[in-house]
Amino acid sequence: MDARYLQDKDELKSTADKVDEDRRALLTTGLVGGAVAAAALASSVAQAQTTPAAATMTPFWPHPKWGKDDVAGGSNWITAAKVLDTVKWIKDGKIYRIGRVYETGMPKFGERAFTMRIPGSPTGGPFGKNMLVYHDEYLATEIGQTGTQFDGLGHIGIQMGKDGDKNQMFYYNGHTEQEIGGAYGLAKIGIENCKPFFTRAHLVDVEGLKGQAWDAGQEITVADVRAAFQKQNMQESDVKEGDAVFFNTGWGKLWMKNNDKFNSGEPGIGMEVAKWLIDKGVCTTGADTWATEVVPNPNKDLVFAVHCELIPKNGIYNHENLDFTDLLADRKYQFAYIFSPAPIKGATGSNGGPIAVT
Amino acid sequence: MDARYLQDKDELKSTADKVDEDRRALLTTGLVGGAVAAAALASSVAQAQTTPAAATMTPFWPHPKWGKDDVAGGSNWITAAKVLDTVKWIKDGKIYRIGRVYETGMPKFGERAFTMRIPGSPTGGPFGKNMLVYHDEYLATEIGQTGTQFDGLGHIGIQMGKDGDKNQMFYYNGHTEQEIGGAYGLAKIGIENCKPFFTRAHLVDVEGLKGQAWDAGQEITVADVRAAFQKQNMQESDVKEGDAVFFNTGWGKLWMKNNDKFNSGEPGIGMEVAKWLIDKGVCTTGADTWATEVVPNPNKDLVFAVHCELIPKNGIYNHENLDFTDLLADRKYQFAYIFSPAPIKGATGSNGGPIAVT
Amino acid sequence: MDARYLQDKDELKSTADKVDEDRRALLTTGLVGGAVAAAALASSVAQAQTTPAAATMTPFWPHPKWGKDDVAGGSNWITAAKVLDTVKWIKDGKIYRIGRVYETGMPKFGERAFTMRIPGSPTGGPFGKNMLVYHDEYLATEIGQTGTQFDGLGHIGIQMGKDGDKNQMFYYNGHTEQEIGGAYGLAKIGIENCKPFFTRAHLVDVEGLKGQAWDAGQEITVADVRAAFQKQNMQESDVKEGDAVFFNTGWGKLWMKNNDKFNSGEPGIGMEVAKWLIDKGVCTTGADTWATEVVPNPNKDLVFAVHCELIPKNGIYNHENLDFTDLLADRKYQFAYIFSPAPIKGATGSNGGPIAVT
Amino acid sequence: MDARYLQDKDELKSTADKVDEDRRALLTTGLVGGAVAAAALASSVAQAQTTPAAATMTPFWPHPKWGKDDVAGGSNWITAAKVLDTVKWIKDGKIYRIGRVYETGMPKFGERAFTMRIPGSPTGGPFGKNMLVYHDEYLATEIGQTGTQFDGLGHIGIQMGKDGDKNQMFYYNGHTEQEIGGAYGLAKIGIENCKPFFTRAHLVDVEGLKGQAWDAGQEITVADVRAAFQKQNMQESDVKEGDAVFFNTGWGKLWMKNNDKFNSGEPGIGMEVAKWLIDKGVCTTGADTWATEVVPNPNKDLVFAVHCELIPKNGIYNHENLDFTDLLADRKYQFAYIFSPAPIKGATGSNGGPIAVT
Repeated sequence: MDARYLQDKDELKSTADKVDEDRRALLTTGLVGGAVAAAALASSVAQAQTTPAAATMTPFWPHPKWGKDDVAGGSNWITAAKVLDTVKWIKDGKIYRIGRVYETGMPKFGERAFTMRIPGSPTGGPFGKNMLVYHDEYLATEIGQTGTQFDGLGHIGIQMGKDGDKNQMFYYNGHTEQEIGGAYGLAKIGIENCKPFFTRAHLVDVEGLKGQAWDAGQEITVADVRAAFQKQNMQESDVKEGDAVFFNTGWGKLWMKNNDKFNSGEPGIGMEVAKWLIDKGVCTTGADTWATEVVPNPNKDLVFAVHCELIPKNGIYNHENLDFTDLLADRKYQFAYIFSPAPIKGATGSNGGPIAVT
Repeated sequence: MDARYLQDKDELKSTADKVDEDRRALLTTGLVGGAVAAAALASSVAQAQTTPAAATMTPFWPHPKWGKDDVAGGSNWITAAKVLDTVKWIKDGKIYRIGRVYETGMPKFGERAFTMRIPGSPTGGPFGKNMLVYHDEYLATEIGQTGTQFDGLGHIGIQMGKDGDKNQMFYYNGHTEQEIGGAYGLAKIGIENCKPFFTRAHLVDVEGLKGQAWDAGQEITVADVRAAFQKQNMQESDVKEGDAVFFNTGWGKLWMKNNDKFNSGEPGIGMEVAKWLIDKGVCTTGADTWATEVVPNPNKDLVFAVHCELIPKNGIYNHENLDFTDLLADRKYQFAYIFSPAPIKGATGSNGGPIAVT
Repeated sequence: MDARYLQDKDELKSTADKVDEDRRALLTTGLVGGAVAAAALASSVAQAQTTPAAATMTPFWPHPKWGKDDVAGGSNWITAAKVLDTVKWIKDGKIYRIGRVYETGMPKFGERAFTMRIPGSPTGGPFGKNMLVYHDEYLATEIGQTGTQFDGLGHIGIQMGKDGDKNQMFYYNGHTEQEIGGAYGLAKIGIENCKPFFTRAHLVDVEGLKGQAWDAGQEITVADVRAAFQKQNMQESDVKEGDAVFFNTGWGKLWMKNNDKFNSGEPGIGMEVAKWLIDKGVCTTGADTWATEVVPNPNKDLVFAVHCELIPKNGIYNHENLDFTDLLADRKYQFAYIFSPAPIKGATGSNGGPIAVT
Repeated sequence: MDARYLQDKDELKSTADKVDEDRRALLTTGLVGGAVAAAALASSVAQAQTTPAAATMTPFWPHPKWGKDDVAGGSNWITAAKVLDTVKWIKDGKIYRIGRVYETGMPKFGERAFTMRIPGSPTGGPFGKNMLVYHDEYLATEIGQTGTQFDGLGHIGIQMGKDGDKNQMFYYNGHTEQEIGGAYGLAKIGIENCKPFFTRAHLVDVEGLKGQAWDAGQEITVADVRAAFQKQNMQESDVKEGDAVFFNTGWGKLWMKNNDKFNSGEPGIGMEVAKWLIDKGVCTTGADTWATEVVPNPNKDLVFAVHCELIPKNGIYNHENLDFTDLLADRKYQFAYIFSPAPIKGATGSNGGPIAVT
């Protein structure tokens, strides 16, 4: 993310303080199940919209479906039945790589770094009469938060008390910063708890809908999603619980072409589509952008509000900096999405090589 | 690898020098196609076995099947037809994670390190009235060569000239150290060139065959492989070109239980099974050990000779430190192996979350 | 530090909770100057010793001598007059290196790491007709807290409220965790604020006093210090404000010889000598051990209590893992101590090459 | 260094190949002692100047003064006598920090990185009833080659044979790349062999001479040096063997102000002043620039030729990115230079906090 979107943080915090009590009350009421509860809460929140606590429409914890002890969130949707349903979508046998190459010069958020060194040349050898020589590589990076990155449940939380009190920063299923924080890895809800994804995925090509790449700050609405489904000859009702829904905005074309612009903001979904995704019960979302959600948010009070909505509150994952170029070239909008996060203990996300199979 | 297996390197080098010329002549003759050529070379090598150049039975470069410009090796086997064949093996919809959790305390070869730090607690925030807080993780490691690791084509080479001459160290398809080496990543044949794997895999459970875990230095023979196939009710002829073959030795049970012993050596395949794998045309092999091959090699002249045989000469990958526990519990010996390496530009291998699907 | 000394943390925390209020009251009374205040407080604390708040004898903040805005602590003593006084002690012109070589295998506290890689071989070149080639080194480490390490003011703080509340963790001059913490460096009181040291130093050789190396858990008393001064033909009154006082225990002989034992504890100073150092007005202390202070503390309630006393409360630095071997061989107990920390912005300490000059 | 100065490397290499034999012959003749030999060689080289092997005026190895086994180079000048002579220059007791603050945003050469993370917030604690909390910092960087950097003897070498042959890349005292290279640290002539500096230093203020900062590509001549000495009321004859000579160009004012320009080149010394420094027998040189020497070199054939001349051939160190602002404000041009490199085993240089004392 570009630092400019964080500059107003202090201002926002001052106005936010006064709504803390309301918010906390709301968020902890959520112990009811499924879509009914979501609807009820959404309605109560609609009335509360004069307060800025916009990020509070759905139950927060315990998770209404996965329960208070769950640490796997949306990846729980990946059952044997889901795999078998997904296999039915594999007809051509064609594999598309939908992740980007990891390299030092790629766009990076804030202070994150990606530095690789090859120790020696070669690193070691020769060994034996077979005269083996070998290379390693030494990589230092925010491994789960650079390049094509898969946000885990420990990545995003919500502060619900005063600044600096780790007991009042809440993550998925109510885990606090005090409980999960750690100098050497998250003590809980690390990415190692996330199950592999093998599910049906729907690509919403809003770039194709509009005929051009979208601009930073432009929010994808539910109407846009529906229009894209229609244009792509897909049924909204095809989106089943546990499926994945991805967005192509065209913004990804800036990758390694104009990194400064790429980092300066992005088009993406807002709270409306976030709620739609939650209603649909997706396991993960993602996009050809670095945050999936619109930056800056048209609602100036909100900063990465979709992240808050999806990850800590609903356990829905977010796969960023995807690349749908080849799929789009083949007009493949529905496919098997296969991604198995690297189970790095206590990590906030994962690198990897996501694929689409048709 | 335990350092003790490298101690004899200087002694070995002195005896190896005198066979350099023979070896180079042999290796560069290979420009003939397929199995016939391999057989011919194997026969010429059989006569040459009085020289210690044991690691030379098959063509080295250009690769007889993939050609002189190829940089993807065994991953080229993963065609649409192979994917569709593999899908037929998915009947239960059950996903097995066959990679291990990455953590600081895991066994590591030599000087390799795995250090992770969570910057701050949290790393940033709160942002917006939605009060987002977030974590990153900073990981510094030999990313492709720690934990469950997938050896790429740039990992292993063969020195065929005097020590220190990078023009005489050869990697897959004849690339030299001078061509591919680089302080910040391999200039060629990095892991980003490897295609995703979605193929049929056969697990050879020699632990099950023997009824107990194997010991370090014990070599799995072709006879063992065949006996395991029989015991597991599998046909050797089921192993098709482009399939994967993995080995379970029981040695992996030492993981995080007795790391010193785990590192001190391992049971595994030797040159005989390596040739069998090459003949079968596997895309990759792998095991529940850190090298897949027997350490120390019963032939004292050889150090990681299987690595030399498979990777630089034949472009066959090697997935190490796998964990077949759950598959074995369910007696699942044949499955879809799905693994898509993280395309880290210029890396020697990849981390990740390999899965088996049945 | 060996992890075993931290195991009882939870137990200790529970008993410590009840003394929080007392402690906070005491610590914030300190706004009086110099030795009189210290004596007065020491007396009030003496009466309070039935409470376990043993770490509270002297004013905490604002610092009575350097004032509320100070960020340089004991390094403020290094004035021009001090330099000129110190120069008088340089008579031989002999330089002694009193820091250790930094290397991967050295003893390290807890999870700290020290990993160095040489990128390429060489890293770059040849350039120009002069055919320059060059090497870099890539080092990843807790730079201020591995090997011979100089503890800065941001390294150590005292928690005075409930767990997890960063507003109640206090560092030098009352800075809170909330104020100074940061994912990418300390926002305040980083080591870059520390001035270079060029001062008179006194080496207290308690190993020489006893005729043998001390054991872990043995506390150096003021009586020991005085006996050592006498044995070394030094006057206690020679220790002037702004001088440095170092301790040789013999424990350092374990360095790279028996790292496990070295890390398992150490002899060193306790609260009594800490107070003596504060009374003397030293700029820094240090030792041939990894903490300078006795580990485990004979008072089971205390864990690194001398660190708390010296650094956050009094702004006195601590130079650990020094090596006095050459000085001792020459019976040089008084010397110019010259050390200029690397001004790494926001770091908690510094590596470097401290020297003694006689 | 800016990458543009390396672009012509391939072209240069092709023309350089044909002079390799001449150069090798010349460089290995040098086994004669001291200034006479230097003069003789300089004269023979003067005639050879029609060949582009300009970097060959003085003996290369073994070092004529320090001998074939030496690994400390110019730091050998720092004897007790030198320290005592230097102490005479300390009259005010004033310490000037002449190194810069290390921070992520500072100018860096090429791919070098400087990334620091604070693990946790705090990193650990509370421990004991004293409720200690603490911070570490995790730094990943080219520790000896970022910010204020002190080039060690293993940093720079000269390739004298074909590309890629490590036996033909020579470092100080004839060590080859094959001998000193290593994946985890230089096997020989690492910075840990360098002795601490406590010597007389002379600052040549060519910015003051000209009344303005110099531009990139402008070479400081011996005539400039002499004019600056005169303007500063210093005698050239004051420069004794083992002294340090530093240069202020004004280019350093771009530091953290205009990093792109700072990195794009620099004013500095060329081969003429390099020879003057060698003749004077300095222990080290340095400047307010990132290379001390003129970039680009007015002789288009040369790239960092002064580095080759000083470090591998003569064992003279080079302290880069110094900051003389405070010294200049006080018109202090002669001072005690005190710098003790961090003895990082196998490192190519050192970070640190160099000081000037007057």
